[in-house]
Amino acid sequence: MMEQLLPGERIDELHQKGYRIIQKSDGFCFGMDAVLLSAYARIGKQDKVLDMGCGTGILPILMEARTEGGYFTGLEIQEEFASMAGRSVALNGQEDRISIVCGDIKEASSLFGRESFDVVVSNPPYMVSEHGYQNPDQKKAIARHEILCNLEDLLRETKRVLKNKGRFYLVHRTYRMAEIIHLLVEYGLEPKRIRFVYPYREKEPNIMLIESIKGAKSRVQVEPPLIVYEEPGVYTDEIYEIYGYEKKKKKGE
Amino acid sequence: MMEQLLPGERIDELHQKGYRIIQKSDGFCFGMDAVLLSAYARIGKQDKVLDMGCGTGILPILMEARTEGGYFTGLEIQEEFASMAGRSVALNGQEDRISIVCGDIKEASSLFGRESFDVVVSNPPYMVSEHGYQNPDQKKAIARHEILCNLEDLLRETKRVLKNKGRFYLVHRTYRMAEIIHLLVEYGLEPKRIRFVYPYREKEPNIMLIESIKGAKSRVQVEPPLIVYEEPGVYTDEIYEIYGYEKKKKKGE
Repeated sequence: MMEQLLPGERIDELHQKGYRIIQKSDGFCFGMDAVLLSAYARIGKQDKVLDMGCGTGILPILMEARTEGGYFTGLEIQEEFASMAGRSVALNGQEDRISIVCGDIKEASSLFGRESFDVVVSNPPYMVSEHGYQNPDQKKAIARHEILCNLEDLLRETKRVLKNKGRFYLVHRTYRMAEIIHLLVEYGLEPKRIRFVYPYREKEPNIMLIESIKGAKSRVQVEPPLIVYEEPGVYTDEIYEIYGYEKKKKKGE
Repeated sequence: MMEQLLPGERIDELHQKGYRIIQKSDGFCFGMDAVLLSAYARIGKQDKVLDMGCGTGILPILMEARTEGGYFTGLEIQEEFASMAGRSVALNGQEDRISIVCGDIKEASSLFGRESFDVVVSNPPYMVSEHGYQNPDQKKAIARHEILCNLEDLLRETKRVLKNKGRFYLVHRTYRMAEIIHLLVEYGLEPKRIRFVYPYREKEPNIMLIESIKGAKSRVQVEPPLIVYEEPGVYTDEIYEIYGYEKKKKKGE
């Protein structure tokens, strides 16, 4: 399978059904957020699922491994990432359940049609484009900053492509929570479940996972905290399980 | 001081500066939420503070005890509660720093004038009036259900009476979080700090404390969890401190 790799690429193990993923050796790699979102999303049997901004394809690849969802589509604007995602899907033999489309989130509803998906997921760029350090590597910057697409573009297109009562799963930074919730409600994507991810127990959370339902009534369940580290360098059992690693044995076992 | 009490009333200790509060023996009594909010609100020296819907006056009485705020006003529509609040203030000798006004939240800006407060606090009725069991005792029902005033009325008047960059402290139920944050943003009361109150460690939170700043830019700090119970019947140290009780000694001390 090495002929699938281009120069500067590498293959990483995913610990799910033996699947692997092609990433850049020195470029943007998937993070924990995508893995957490793949475990958070409730995908029903036969659901048609769209990942808005799929990067190297980590979300559709993991969701296909974890769920009985009917069909997964990954939409990615950067050709280089879309190419890697497509080759990873082929490497894993997932072509019958995943397709990767190179295109713009802002045009998702014209590409796929309105009300065409049961579920939309997204791990979008977190940072507002006007602020903060931008990566001099333009490809990484597009994955991290709202350069080609902002939160409102994402929610507008998500609303359009989702069926009524369809579900939208988003992972994002807690510091943008007010803006995120305000816009979700504006676009009729009613937040129903929210889980905060705390790096350490009883510290501040930095990440949030949100399930919204298009056209639902307003009522939110804030779920128990998701704690990442038991202590520096040691994940909690829940994180080991999500990653598909062997559960770390407790001392004395 | 017993002549201050009307039939059916009792006096409770507050564990702050020896202050006490008059409550109905069989009516609506203040809860933990008000105590938590009184400790959450950052009140600066000389700040003019308004409590929207003060009930028996628990918030201004505790905030006067805890802070160097300049002047506290409690607004309460139910005459019976306003009367109890006024008598508690007199009982504690707080008349020079607290006044209680019997009036309607919906008329707060005409009563007090626009941009007349540095801080607004509120522990409003939590329940939407159309839903759920309503208390057959109409006075309790008004304190718990949005019968005379809903969340939007509260935020509209809060925006009006607050100075620019003034702070608004709200305690509410997490299940209404999406609606609350959406409306706060709509009314230019930008959420800046949010703290979730968890009855037990690593369970679901049920209460949220929010600090909003009028006219601020959008950026939220989600703070570490506030845990209420160490185990059934035993508060955490933080709760004992907020209540002003002696810190519970740990086993072995």
